[in-house]
Amino acid sequence: MDAIKVLGEYKKRIDSALGDFFDKKINEAEAIDSSAVEIMKNLKDFNLRGGKRIRPALMIHGYKCFSDADDKKDKDLIRFSLAAELMEGFFLIHDDVLDQDELRRGGPTFHAIYRERFNDSHFGEGVAIVAGDMQNSLANEIIAEAGSVELLKQYHKTALRTEYGWLIESMLTKKPIDEVTEEDVMKVNMYKTSAYTIEGPLIMGATLAGAGEKNIKILSDFAIPLGQAFQIQDDILGMFGDEKKLGKPVGSDIREGKVTLLIVKALEKASEEDKKELLSALGKKDITIEEIERLRKIINDCSSLDYSKRMAEEMIEKAKKALENADFRKEGKDFLEGIADFLINREY
Amino acid sequence: MDAIKVLGEYKKRIDSALGDFFDKKINEAEAIDSSAVEIMKNLKDFNLRGGKRIRPALMIHGYKCFSDADDKKDKDLIRFSLAAELMEGFFLIHDDVLDQDELRRGGPTFHAIYRERFNDSHFGEGVAIVAGDMQNSLANEIIAEAGSVELLKQYHKTALRTEYGWLIESMLTKKPIDEVTEEDVMKVNMYKTSAYTIEGPLIMGATLAGAGEKNIKILSDFAIPLGQAFQIQDDILGMFGDEKKLGKPVGSDIREGKVTLLIVKALEKASEEDKKELLSALGKKDITIEEIERLRKIINDCSSLDYSKRMAEEMIEKAKKALENADFRKEGKDFLEGIADFLINREY
Repeated sequence: MDAIKVLGEYKKRIDSALGDFFDKKINEAEAIDSSAVEIMKNLKDFNLRGGKRIRPALMIHGYKCFSDADDKKDKDLIRFSLAAELMEGFFLIHDDVLDQDELRRGGPTFHAIYRERFNDSHFGEGVAIVAGDMQNSLANEIIAEAGSVELLKQYHKTALRTEYGWLIESMLTKKPIDEVTEEDVMKVNMYKTSAYTIEGPLIMGATLAGAGEKNIKILSDFAIPLGQAFQIQDDILGMFGDEKKLGKPVGSDIREGKVTLLIVKALEKASEEDKKELLSALGKKDITIEEIERLRKIINDCSSLDYSKRMAEEMIEKAKKALENADFRKEGKDFLEGIADFLINREY
Repeated sequence: MDAIKVLGEYKKRIDSALGDFFDKKINEAEAIDSSAVEIMKNLKDFNLRGGKRIRPALMIHGYKCFSDADDKKDKDLIRFSLAAELMEGFFLIHDDVLDQDELRRGGPTFHAIYRERFNDSHFGEGVAIVAGDMQNSLANEIIAEAGSVELLKQYHKTALRTEYGWLIESMLTKKPIDEVTEEDVMKVNMYKTSAYTIEGPLIMGATLAGAGEKNIKILSDFAIPLGQAFQIQDDILGMFGDEKKLGKPVGSDIREGKVTLLIVKALEKASEEDKKELLSALGKKDITIEEIERLRKIINDCSSLDYSKRMAEEMIEKAKKALENADFRKEGKDFLEGIADFLINREY
């Protein structure tokens, strides 16, 4: 099975369902206020502007690991999978405020849109807080439509785990950088990334198919290392990737002073001089591309890049191993294996 | 029936349930991270520090309008009513970031707690965004426990309405102040205050008792004007009330440049000179108590205060009228009538 092709096909259908969903919301907003119409239009654009739709596709295949879906059910599943996509948008909008990011999916972040319009930075952040909360409400509207209390439980379990991950990550920025450990970073990756990127969506889908505890456990054992690998790969791309393909600026983790596995390992392994350079660059808002080039060389030379790549590969292996003896439907299992390979080989 | 006495009795039981709920969460957080334990402790304190528990009490009595509750059911109801209280905390935490408020329920706002600790204003706001999102997740945990998809629908319908109200209110701050109309203000009051203070909690409770469409409509007809009256009264207290009883500084609406009915009417009715003074005071962060005294006199002299009081009274009458022919259980109906009187006569 070509998981990428399947992902691409689902992306089209999910995008179309997402567009329909927001068109209805825009319509409803007409009766409320012009500002309500405007924010729904902006949310529609923000949601449709990009995104690989990995989360809803995982939700759909979490279902397909346990149950077949005829055409009618398949259509419903696509609709319900919007819960995972809307959740992603909710987190991105709030996360971008926390990180003070400017670019997302090749366009301005949500707070930047409203800040620019009124030349008021606090105002932009305020509207983004509300907009993120709205996305969360919309995701829950979909869950209510699906009519499953079990799905509701899994959604908010995922949300709370992600929120804990966020918090732990935020608090790490207040710890002296060279005291942050690999364990700290992997904990953030597990709570934040694994939860809402892989584990939550998969289990949400599996729940809809009525999967039992034993199978849910297998999905977690697959999802947690995969999410950690995904995050490590994300950090590598964010430092070494192609800005155009990524849709966001390279080196933003450095600018934000975010401590990734790449950085922790480099601080551990680099020479004293390089370590100093790295420390002074972290959190530097006006870092130049030349300085980023220097950091890349440091991270590469001390073999932190290799270490991170190897760690990501090991995690992928661990994830795949969790699936080995799983008695899942072939359509679902093949997709999970394919997506694991994709996530480690992607360039965007 | 003495609704205030009933409210007081329920407050005790709700506070105790709220404390138990957070103690369990603090316990769970032990397995996650020390920062997780800390935020749950801070949330417990924030939730228990004050609050009249009007929303959960309304939820409970929304139920009691339609169904009797034995001791077991009553205990469950108190537990489920935490959804309304946790939602309130979610909104307060985010709202305080939007409004840059410093005091809440006689203590520092959530963002102020973390800002002060690290002397970092953006960091404090970031943690408050996450903390508000957490409260929302916790509220939904309770809803999942109640096991009602209908309750889920009503919760998020209420949340979305409140979020729209927030947005409309935020956008109003960008409109030239003397172009803001009474209609604008009443729309904010309806979407923001009525929805999550009165209408949402009541309907959430009624839904759990299986109330039908006709009765839900009566509750809305009661709740919307009551919420509007509540907000007008809140604005009056915020301007003319006693800081100690309120637990927040007097005149904060002025400092934030918030356009309340009091202000809209004063701008319409005051002399040109007074109008100028009012306009120049709005949004003034360092306004003195003497200046606030002057504004009080202006608002009083031009009869805007009387107008607002009368409007609130009319709204209360309208609310009560909606109940007149309602075939509700006496216990529920009496409480609704009593609470309507309380809300208009309160001093805090």
